[in-house]
Amino acid sequence: MDLNLTDLHDEALTARVQHRIDRKTKPLGALGRIEALALRLALIQGRETPQLDAPQLVVFAADHGIAARGVSAYPQDVTAQMVMNMLAGGAAVSVLARQHGLTLTIVDCGVRSDTPPQAGLVAAKVAHGSADCTEKPAMTRAQCEAAIDHGVRIVSQLPGNVLLLGEMGIANTSSAALLMARLTGLSIDLCAGRGTGLDDAGFARKLDVLRSALKRHADMREPLDILAALGGLEIATMVGAVFEAARTRRVILVDGFITTAAVAVAASLAPHVLQRCIFAHCSAESGHARWLQHLRVDPLLNLDLRLGEGSGAALAWPLLRSAELLLREMASFDSAGVSERSA
Amino acid sequence: MDLNLTDLHDEALTARVQHRIDRKTKPLGALGRIEALALRLALIQGRETPQLDAPQLVVFAADHGIAARGVSAYPQDVTAQMVMNMLAGGAAVSVLARQHGLTLTIVDCGVRSDTPPQAGLVAAKVAHGSADCTEKPAMTRAQCEAAIDHGVRIVSQLPGNVLLLGEMGIANTSSAALLMARLTGLSIDLCAGRGTGLDDAGFARKLDVLRSALKRHADMREPLDILAALGGLEIATMVGAVFEAARTRRVILVDGFITTAAVAVAASLAPHVLQRCIFAHCSAESGHARWLQHLRVDPLLNLDLRLGEGSGAALAWPLLRSAELLLREMASFDSAGVSERSA
Repeated sequence: MDLNLTDLHDEALTARVQHRIDRKTKPLGALGRIEALALRLALIQGRETPQLDAPQLVVFAADHGIAARGVSAYPQDVTAQMVMNMLAGGAAVSVLARQHGLTLTIVDCGVRSDTPPQAGLVAAKVAHGSADCTEKPAMTRAQCEAAIDHGVRIVSQLPGNVLLLGEMGIANTSSAALLMARLTGLSIDLCAGRGTGLDDAGFARKLDVLRSALKRHADMREPLDILAALGGLEIATMVGAVFEAARTRRVILVDGFITTAAVAVAASLAPHVLQRCIFAHCSAESGHARWLQHLRVDPLLNLDLRLGEGSGAALAWPLLRSAELLLREMASFDSAGVSERSA
Repeated sequence: MDLNLTDLHDEALTARVQHRIDRKTKPLGALGRIEALALRLALIQGRETPQLDAPQLVVFAADHGIAARGVSAYPQDVTAQMVMNMLAGGAAVSVLARQHGLTLTIVDCGVRSDTPPQAGLVAAKVAHGSADCTEKPAMTRAQCEAAIDHGVRIVSQLPGNVLLLGEMGIANTSSAALLMARLTGLSIDLCAGRGTGLDDAGFARKLDVLRSALKRHADMREPLDILAALGGLEIATMVGAVFEAARTRRVILVDGFITTAAVAVAASLAPHVLQRCIFAHCSAESGHARWLQHLRVDPLLNLDLRLGEGSGAALAWPLLRSAELLLREMASFDSAGVSERSA
């Protein structure tokens, strides 16, 4: 895994792209955040007129040992069932991928049951679920590194230059909240939320479980040790995927709370990762807004989503395409013969 | 113009649609505002599984006499130039309409110069621009009614069941701000903004001009008299378009500040108009957020756009399609064999 990422900051290119945007037939700045998005795409690709090719939506799935502690409103079998539902075309992300022509790939990073070989499914199972991190590290360091390697390899073989991140894993808001607490230093109460819909008693139980996990692994210091101790197999695989996508200067469209966890781990090792990331939306999962703020990033959408699967990334995707097309296809004041501002 | 609109409130249908949404393979409410959007589409169409056909993006264009008072940063000729740019495919709205397969129609409601006949252009010119409303009503009552009739007729002949509203008209943020002040009772300082980008001196001048227009027409009481006095030909045409779209139970996707003005005038005559409207985005034009709040509606996007043309409506359009498709195509817990919540 290559942690030496090019710094994409480029004043000359920024000036050229900004000039191009400013010459388009519209008042200065009138396309608001779509203009900033166009500039970001240009900087990621290092060219004035970025082109987004063959966008890939990859859903990383795994089970979590901590689910046995009753931290989720849903039984653990739902992870495997939802993988099959996604492959059969019935999940939200399946519908949205079809709508937008996104190639959908599901990666079994560590689903508890065996998943039958199937088109669209990548077998990258490191273990049949992670361990219960209140008892021991969720992954051994070797498992964690194997998952990261899988992520690197899978992305390296994907066509195109855009990666949309998605995930599925019952109890994975717990892992993400634990990583958030350790990476940001914030109290777990500010990081954890109700996930798929815990009631008050369930949420109180979840917080107790998370506190005990944090306590058990309080001595971990290195990001990859923290990831192994508190994360999950789909999150570790995504960390590798994010690194490889960043190294190859793909656009990374980040979905919600759990995919943000993977990006945050990667960025803690190589901050320039964030230069390649566009945050699709702010989730209704309570810690997400705070984490985005902590990372100093602005999500595109705010639609109270809390589904995961990459559904928010898919919903935001057409905005990226719009930014690309506007930068490429809009006329300039000169080409269209439109008068410029007088006041 | 038929002001008797069916009340779309329907508890039985709401319950059926909500049940359908809740049986989808996702945690309850996890698709957030997309779920509310799906329900809204169902209520507008009066059926459990709405279907959006042949979406029409119509840009209503006209010039404004008040432009002579220096209330815009751009010269008045830009209205006609941008109409030609839209037709030639170089405007932002042209690019976005192509991206999303939206049929784009431009309506000359009252551009100052003559617009040559052209495919995609509807000639509905009532006058060569409105009058300067600091001197007399922007439109005579007859002109205003003629424009409204045009709007009704144009929409009645459009295919499909979705109308995306757009507009173009140098100085039309002035007209919209005047209408906002009169319809909401708020001070003009809370309604007017910098439009296409006025500097401080220009903005102060704009506010002075708007105050004098309000003073001159302070005796107007009826919404259509207020519209005639302070509005513009594209806004009046849009009022007719909104009524006809509402009467025929089309989905109306409202763009920014000026299209909101047309909807607000229509809603002041027939409040059920709002049941058919989806507000695409909150504009960076300063009065818009306040107006949306006053109308008690929540826009889908918040991207600091202030371009008009229907560009925000076009950017939000794929979210409507997503809501439709998710409601129609997502599997249910039963059909997909996914376990339900345990806690």
